[in-house]
Amino acid sequence: MAEAAHSSVDLADRAKAGADRSGYQPPSLPDGVVYAHDAGEVADLLRLATAHRVPVVPRGAGTGLAAGSTARAGEVVLDVSRMNAILRIDPEEQLAVVQPGVLNAELNTAAGEYGLFYAPDPASTAICSIGGNIATNAGGMRCAKYGVTREAVLALRVILADGRELRTGRETIKGVSGYDLNALMIGSEGTLGIVVEATLRLRPLPVQTATVAAFFPNVEQAARAASAVVASRIQPSMMELMDGQTLEAVDAALGTDYRSRGASFLLVQTDGHGAFLEQDVVMDAVAPFGTCEKAVDDEQAAALVRARREAIPSLEKLGRVSIGDIGVPRGRLAEVVSGLEEISARTGVRIFTVAHASDGNLHPMIVMDPEDSVTEGPPKVALGEMFRLAKSLGGTLTGEHGIGLLKRDWLEEELGGVSLEVMHTIRAALDPLGILNPGKAI
Amino acid sequence: MAEAAHSSVDLADRAKAGADRSGYQPPSLPDGVVYAHDAGEVADLLRLATAHRVPVVPRGAGTGLAAGSTARAGEVVLDVSRMNAILRIDPEEQLAVVQPGVLNAELNTAAGEYGLFYAPDPASTAICSIGGNIATNAGGMRCAKYGVTREAVLALRVILADGRELRTGRETIKGVSGYDLNALMIGSEGTLGIVVEATLRLRPLPVQTATVAAFFPNVEQAARAASAVVASRIQPSMMELMDGQTLEAVDAALGTDYRSRGASFLLVQTDGHGAFLEQDVVMDAVAPFGTCEKAVDDEQAAALVRARREAIPSLEKLGRVSIGDIGVPRGRLAEVVSGLEEISARTGVRIFTVAHASDGNLHPMIVMDPEDSVTEGPPKVALGEMFRLAKSLGGTLTGEHGIGLLKRDWLEEELGGVSLEVMHTIRAALDPLGILNPGKAI
Ligand SMILES: Cc1cc2nc3c(=O)[nH]c(=O)nc-3n(C[C@H](O)[C@H](O)[C@H](O)COP(=O)(O)OP(=O)(O)OC[C@H]3O[C@@H](n4cnc5c(N)ncnc54)[C@H](O)[C@@H]3O)c2cc1C
Ligand SMILES: Cc1cc2nc3c(=O)[nH]c(=O)nc-3n(C[C@H](O)[C@H](O)[C@H](O)COP(=O)(O)OP(=O)(O)OC[C@H]3O[C@@H](n4cnc5c(N)ncnc54)[C@H](O)[C@@H]3O)c2cc1C
Repeated sequence: MAEAAHSSVDLADRAKAGADRSGYQPPSLPDGVVYAHDAGEVADLLRLATAHRVPVVPRGAGTGLAAGSTARAGEVVLDVSRMNAILRIDPEEQLAVVQPGVLNAELNTAAGEYGLFYAPDPASTAICSIGGNIATNAGGMRCAKYGVTREAVLALRVILADGRELRTGRETIKGVSGYDLNALMIGSEGTLGIVVEATLRLRPLPVQTATVAAFFPNVEQAARAASAVVASRIQPSMMELMDGQTLEAVDAALGTDYRSRGASFLLVQTDGHGAFLEQDVVMDAVAPFGTCEKAVDDEQAAALVRARREAIPSLEKLGRVSIGDIGVPRGRLAEVVSGLEEISARTGVRIFTVAHASDGNLHPMIVMDPEDSVTEGPPKVALGEMFRLAKSLGGTLTGEHGIGLLKRDWLEEELGGVSLEVMHTIRAALDPLGILNPGKAI
Repeated sequence: MAEAAHSSVDLADRAKAGADRSGYQPPSLPDGVVYAHDAGEVADLLRLATAHRVPVVPRGAGTGLAAGSTARAGEVVLDVSRMNAILRIDPEEQLAVVQPGVLNAELNTAAGEYGLFYAPDPASTAICSIGGNIATNAGGMRCAKYGVTREAVLALRVILADGRELRTGRETIKGVSGYDLNALMIGSEGTLGIVVEATLRLRPLPVQTATVAAFFPNVEQAARAASAVVASRIQPSMMELMDGQTLEAVDAALGTDYRSRGASFLLVQTDGHGAFLEQDVVMDAVAPFGTCEKAVDDEQAAALVRARREAIPSLEKLGRVSIGDIGVPRGRLAEVVSGLEEISARTGVRIFTVAHASDGNLHPMIVMDPEDSVTEGPPKVALGEMFRLAKSLGGTLTGEHGIGLLKRDWLEEELGGVSLEVMHTIRAALDPLGILNPGKAI
C-alpha cells in the first residue's frame, strides 16, 4: 500500500502492531502495518482504504488499556508514531502545536523549558502519545484541578475516512462558531477520524506545591477522608488513594514501608499562591479519619508521588494485571470501595484499588495468574460486577481509558439504546463504509 | 397543536415569540407559539411537527444576540420558559438538576444558599435561561477561571427531532463511555435537539476575592496590561476591559466619574486562598502601563463590577446597540482594539469596546441611530470588517453569543468548507427533515 520503508508485512511487526497494553489477545494478526510520516500519507492511505473497503486501525504508542488499537486479520494498522515533531511552542499564548506521535512526557519536557506544562498526565506519560491521549480523552493525576484532555485541546487537524482533511476548534480560548467537533473527536477512539495535528493548551507551572500524606485503618476511611476534602471546598491539584494491598506491593517493589503506617493511603497536593493555606484546610478535613502529615520538603513529596506512580508496575510483579477504570459520584467513594471488597470476596478474584479520588475515578486492578484473562471465567464475572456496581451508584464503566473492544458488552447498559443509536448514526454519517477502527468504542 | 392554555396564535404572543435581543427584525410572524410544561409535551410537539414537517424554533428567555430564537411565517415557536423548576441541588456532589427555563440568576440564588455558585454568568444573568445558555454555550465574566457553559454541564436530557429522548453525559466528573454528545449539544443553538433537563456542576463560593482597578491613557495600553497579566501566570477570576467612550457612557448613566481617571479601564479580580498574593502579581504586571489600585473593601469592588455590568444598558441610552462578540488569541488584544478604532474611523460607524480580556473575547458595540440596522449599510460593512479583523489575527467571529441567523454569512470563511459540510452531515443524521430551528447556527 506504500513504499517499503513505510509499511511492513513482517510477522513480528504485525504482532507488535496488533496488540496494546490491555492484555487482550487478538485472534489473528493484522494484514500489515503502514507507518505514516505526514498528514498527506495518512490521507493517501485512507483514500486507498476507502477505495478497497479495507478496515484501518489507528495506532499511537499502543499503551491503551481497552484494546482500542488492537487489530486482526483483514485489518491494516495505521501507525502514526513516526509523526512525532513538536511543531511550535508559543509561550505567550501558552499553547503548543504537535504531531500525534509526540509522547506526553516529551511535550511536558519541552513545555517545561518555558515554565509551562501540559496538564493531562496519564501514569503512562513516558510511553503514550498525544494522539492516543486525544483519541481516549486521557486523564491522570493532575486532572483533578486542571481538567482532562478535552479541556486541554484547542484545535485539531483530522483526516476523515474518505481522506478529506477536517479542522476542528480554534486557537482562541473561547469560540462558539458551529458545532463542537473538537469534543466529538476527543474520546472517539479512532472511529471518526485520524488526528494528524493538535493545538494544545499549556499552563504555567505552579509557583509552589504543598503535599499531605495520610494513612487510615481501612480503605473506607480513606474514601471518607477524600469525600471530606471535596466537601471542604478547596480544589486539590492531586488527590490519590491506594488500598493496603497496593501499599504492600509498592513497598515490596520500592523497599519502602508505607503499609506499616496504615491500611490505606491518601496523597493530597494543593498548588498555586494559596497552596499552603489550602494545605491546612486539607489537614483539617482528613484528620478525623486517620493520621496525616505535611511533606517536609520537595524530596519527600516526590517520593510519595513516585509511590503512587509505581503502583501499576509494582502490581505487575504479582501477576497478570487488568486495570479497571470505573467512575462514581465523589460522595460515593466509600460505598464503591466496600463494594469492590465484596466482589473480590465473592468471586475469589484479587482486586487492588487505586483511585483519582478527587474525580471519583477508580482503577480497581484485577491481578490474575499469567494464563488467566479478563475475557473469560471469574475475572470476566468480576469485571462485569464492577461495572454494575459503578452503575448502581450513578457511575460509569470508564473514567478515562475508553471502551475499545473490552467494555463494549456493558456499554448499552450504561448509555441506553437511544444514545448508542445516535452515536452509530453519527459514526455512519462520518464514515459510511465503517472502515475506521470497526467494532471499537461504540 | 395543543390545548388552549398551552399554545397561542394571538398576534402579540407571536410577535413577542418571534424576536430576540439581537435587533434582527424577522420578515413575518411565526404561525403560533406552544408553551411546553414538561418533557412529554416537548416530545409530543416534535412528533407532531415531524409528522407534518413543521419547522420548530426552540425558545428560552429570548435574550439571544444572534437571532437564534427568532421565527417567521411557516414556523412554530416552542417556548420552554415555563419548564422552570430547580429539581435538585446536591451540595455534597456540588451539582444541580434543573429544567431549561430556570433563569441563570435563579439558579445562582438557590446555589448560594449552600455556599455554591454556578460559574457561567452572562451579563444577562437575571433574564436568560439555562436552556438558552446551554444552546449557545454562554460565557460571562467569571468564565476566565471557571470555564464556560461547556465546562459546567455534566448531563442533559434532550428531545430529538423525532420525539425520542436522548440522555447525554453523566453525573460523574469524568467519563469516556461513547462519544461526547453533551458537548455536541452544547452550543448547537437548538438545531440538534431540545434540552429538557440539565445536570450542572456547581462550585464552592470563593473564600475571598481581591480586586484591582487600573486606568490607562488609551485602550491599547489597557490591552497590553491585560496580556501582561496573562503572561504573569496567575489566573484571574475576572479581567474586564472597557474603552474610554464606554466609560463616558457608564459615567453618564450611573453618575460616576471613571472617565476622568483614564481613557480605558481594566478590572482584575483574583479569588481563593491565594487571592491577595495573586493581587500583588496583578499590580506588578499592570503598573508599567497605567495607574492601578487595590479596591479597599467589598463595597468598592462591587461598585467596580457594577460599572462593568452596566456597560450595555448605558450604551443603550445612546442609540440602538448591536453587540459584537469576536475572539482573538490573548496576546493580540492590543492589535484588535487598534483595528477596531481604525474600522470605526474608516466606516464612520461608532464602535465601543468592552472585553473579557482574560479569554481574548471582545464585545465591540456598534451604536446606531434607532432606524439603522446591522443587516444593511455601513453597520453591516463594519460588522463584516470586524469579523475579518478577528480572523486575520487568528480569531473567531463569535466567542460566546453564537451564529444564529446574524453571522451565517461569515461562517464558512471561518470554518472552511469541509468543517461546515461535516456539521451539515451530522445535522442531517440527527434531524433528517430539518425541522429543528432551520437556517440557524450552521
Ligand atoms: C502503565 C499504564 C498506565 C496508564 N495510566 C493511565 C492514566 O493514568 N490515565 C489514562 O487516561 N490512561 C492511562 N493509561 C492508558 C493509555 O496510556 C492511554 O489510554 C493513552 O491515551 C493511550 O495512548 P497511546 O498513544 O498508547 O494510544 P494507543 O494505545 O495506540 O491507542 C489508543 C486508542 O486511540 C486510537 N488512536 C491512537 N492514535 C490515534 C490518532 N492519531 N488518531 C486517532 N485515533 C488514534 C487507537 O485507535 C485506540 O483506539 C495507562 C496505560 C498504562 C500501560
Ligand atoms: C444585556 C445582555 C447581555 C448579555 N451578556 C451576555 C454575556 O455576557 N455572555 C453571553 O454568553 N451571552 C450574553 N448575552 C446573550 C444571551 O443572554 C445568551 O445568549 C443566553 O444564553 C440566551 O439565553 P436565552 O434563554 O435568552 O435563549 P434564547 O434567546 O431564547 O435562545 C438562544 C438560542 O438557544 C436556543 N434554545 C433556547 N432554549 C433552548 C432549549 N431548551 N433547547 C434547545 N435550544 C434552546 C434558541 O433556539 C436559540 O437558538 C447577553 C444578552 C443581553 C440582552
